[in-house]
Amino acid sequence: SGLVLVKNPHLDSMEEDVLYHLDLGTKTHNLPAMFGDIKFVCVGGSPNRMRAFAQFMQRELGLAGDGEDVTDICAGSDRYAMYQAGPVLSISHGMGIPSISIMLHELIKLLHHAKCRDVTIIRIGTSGGLGIEAGSVVITDTAVDSSFQPRFEQVVLDDVVVRSTQLDKDLAEELLACSREIPDFPTLIGHTMCTYDFYEGQGRLDGALCSFSSEKKLEYLRRAYDAGVRNIEMESTAFAALCGLCGLKGESCSFHLP
Amino acid sequence: SGLVLVKNPHLDSMEEDVLYHLDLGTKTHNLPAMFGDIKFVCVGGSPNRMRAFAQFMQRELGLAGDGEDVTDICAGSDRYAMYQAGPVLSISHGMGIPSISIMLHELIKLLHHAKCRDVTIIRIGTSGGLGIEAGSVVITDTAVDSSFQPRFEQVVLDDVVVRSTQLDKDLAEELLACSREIPDFPTLIGHTMCTYDFYEGQGRLDGALCSFSSEKKLEYLRRAYDAGVRNIEMESTAFAALCGLCGLKGESCSFHLP
Repeated sequence: SGLVLVKNPHLDSMEEDVLYHLDLGTKTHNLPAMFGDIKFVCVGGSPNRMRAFAQFMQRELGLAGDGEDVTDICAGSDRYAMYQAGPVLSISHGMGIPSISIMLHELIKLLHHAKCRDVTIIRIGTSGGLGIEAGSVVITDTAVDSSFQPRFEQVVLDDVVVRSTQLDKDLAEELLACSREIPDFPTLIGHTMCTYDFYEGQGRLDGALCSFSSEKKLEYLRRAYDAGVRNIEMESTAFAALCGLCGLKGESCSFHLP
Repeated sequence: SGLVLVKNPHLDSMEEDVLYHLDLGTKTHNLPAMFGDIKFVCVGGSPNRMRAFAQFMQRELGLAGDGEDVTDICAGSDRYAMYQAGPVLSISHGMGIPSISIMLHELIKLLHHAKCRDVTIIRIGTSGGLGIEAGSVVITDTAVDSSFQPRFEQVVLDDVVVRSTQLDKDLAEELLACSREIPDFPTLIGHTMCTYDFYEGQGRLDGALCSFSSEKKLEYLRRAYDAGVRNIEMESTAFAALCGLCGLKGESCSFHLP
């Protein structure tokens, strides 16, 4: 049916669903009227960038206004920022798996309550590249963990549940084709490694703690490269797992900062 | 010596240390002049609340201004917000272990570069309470993971390192004594459970996914209570581990939202 799936039998019996961190709710807002026409959701870590992206989309789509008039739909919460440009929703998710997970749970319920259909969600964040040109965009085929495994371990109460981190292959190819229409836009499809830590977890030598040598770091990153990893960030496994379970066509594209 | 310890032999040989997510650096800023007199650092998830806290501290300390004039020291970055009120620094850390970890790595290096001495760091965030009165503050003696164990598992490259999550006992008692001077301020010392997920990880029945029954949830939370857990949040194990390793006297106090 193209509807977004929530997999929670308790939701039907709830009188009200408060999307707390988005400052939205089923009783306080008419979610179908506000969001029913959404077809694309783009998410990224930084609120400023997601605002700039919404302004860019307004201009690209030829929508009314000069592109400077987007307003933060979640202004009552300082956890996330959300902007709309026609059928496109642009939302920040903060940094790391726990932060993006809270946002995705509430976004998925929002799209469900709004009865949206055939929604595509794309992460457009930043990442560190691995053996690729600075400024490249990596379109993720599979998100992998720090052992290069295509899995997301979710703790449910005190059980560990392993979830798939496969993203939408057709969407990845479609995005790659789009990139080829733009000159000087280095883009590739590869695995994206997702870590829980920016410093010790990604082999950085400049954190407050560092117990490994430069050689050990390079050896680890070489093994990651050999396993197909082309970039490293901090959200893709949870993003892939949640999108996959809830029937959202999802793709993660990360820009390798120069 | 009371100095903040960085445990990274690579730092000494770096010409410049850019604290990227704080928009500060050793070449662009005079960190000892800006931060050398800092004695207390208070951290919490929400940037708005940390701004309000800095304004409150300005008023409490009788500092110049009407308490409305604090400026965001990290304004060039939208990842975190930082405000100063005399010897007190007030910083937001976002939600979850990865987000607070990035901030703490860069904060610890900041305090190190600024040659700060005898710094006390206190997390003043929110949490969900367990069998306690709404509006209570829990002062954490030990942070525990979702299996109620006092440990933080840090992935370093692809090794898992287990770290202690014990917080400063004297500081906990001191804070408890302070709370007793204020009427109607329910405060207790207890274990704080730290999870990677807000919905499935904390037994919430209202996420986009929920595979457990209300009974299973209650049974889990009862076991947590029996193990000494009095509240649940998403940062304390990483906070305790990093403070402990870097010689920062640290305590986590969380307000149980009604």
